[in-house]
Amino acid sequence: MAVKMIDVKGDILSANDMLAEGLRSRFEQAKVFVMNIMSSPGAGKTSVILRIIEALADRVRIGVIEGDIASDVDARKIEAAKVDVVQINTAGACHLDANMILGATNALGLDGKGLLIIENVGNLVCPAEFKLGEHVKVMILSVAEGHDKPLKYPLMFTESDALLVNKVDLLPYTDFDMDELRKTVIAMNPKIRIFPVSAKTGEGMDRFVGWLEQNIQGR
Amino acid sequence: MAVKMIDVKGDILSANDMLAEGLRSRFEQAKVFVMNIMSSPGAGKTSVILRIIEALADRVRIGVIEGDIASDVDARKIEAAKVDVVQINTAGACHLDANMILGATNALGLDGKGLLIIENVGNLVCPAEFKLGEHVKVMILSVAEGHDKPLKYPLMFTESDALLVNKVDLLPYTDFDMDELRKTVIAMNPKIRIFPVSAKTGEGMDRFVGWLEQNIQGR
Repeated sequence: MAVKMIDVKGDILSANDMLAEGLRSRFEQAKVFVMNIMSSPGAGKTSVILRIIEALADRVRIGVIEGDIASDVDARKIEAAKVDVVQINTAGACHLDANMILGATNALGLDGKGLLIIENVGNLVCPAEFKLGEHVKVMILSVAEGHDKPLKYPLMFTESDALLVNKVDLLPYTDFDMDELRKTVIAMNPKIRIFPVSAKTGEGMDRFVGWLEQNIQGR
Repeated sequence: MAVKMIDVKGDILSANDMLAEGLRSRFEQAKVFVMNIMSSPGAGKTSVILRIIEALADRVRIGVIEGDIASDVDARKIEAAKVDVVQINTAGACHLDANMILGATNALGLDGKGLLIIENVGNLVCPAEFKLGEHVKVMILSVAEGHDKPLKYPLMFTESDALLVNKVDLLPYTDFDMDELRKTVIAMNPKIRIFPVSAKTGEGMDRFVGWLEQNIQGR
């Protein structure tokens, strides 16, 4: 008789996927569109979220779930923009999982919300493996990180529906090659939408917000 | 009788620590000083390593182990600097562990080397949990990532012996507050050495290389 092997990582991922499917049904019932935002630390997730709030808050009721290993630095920024926010502290875990989102949506409440934004833990690797019941995955790459990142961290680039290339205001001071980046990313994921933006100056944010709004309405 | 719980994560970490101790003895016997470099993706690990090679390669024989999820982009840059290098592809894993380093040192060879540099996977979270038998842990934070990172990703800042604050050439174009960063980091880890540098222009690298050379000689 062959020995049965227990694949611990595989089991964790499939339990997470099942829970994520349940979350997705709950989001559908509540008519909430859910976006999962992922990036390296410091690529600009919170700044992008603040720009989305600025552009959409008068038309769509927004809720935000903030994922961090420690601290409530980001949640306090969102709260200052007068949007409902729940902070998850993962106590060391390097990504959010569906179980954490279940707890956070219970605390936040979905009633009447049109858009739920989930800010994942800053990490270009692990968050891409965990479904959270989201409708779209959006990732951010800062031009300060360099255009070679898709080759070195492929999963998030292949899993995402949209890529924001943030901090284009720093382009003149870096050797970031936007054409090279586009070529690499599109070869890996032909359907991905790429938006060069600066959350700092607001440049390019209108195109991304337009895409997001189309997705919310088309749901 | 109480149920015995199996702590899978705890077991993985303690097996890793034991293997890391074995590696450390092997490094001591071979008289190789070992530095583990960690940071977010794109903070400048490879560029810093190239500066170290430029400064030290005529006095110390150097070997490099490159850790990436995929690709050999970084290893080819090190090879071009005429230094022995081994590339580890982790096939999805978000950090290096002691077992990977055991395989890589066998492939690289330690004989005659004075300094072994291990470039970890770009990730501000998980690599901090895994000992690799190193003598010093060095982390890099790019000024483009922002000065609030220690609060959000505390473990790496408390585990590291030195912090390189890289890309200071971008300081005029960001709102990075160096004094605030120093204050936060030193409160978490009073013994850490902080070096503002630009691997691009070379600024500040002499002080860091001086510290590293003292550590190599003082071993």
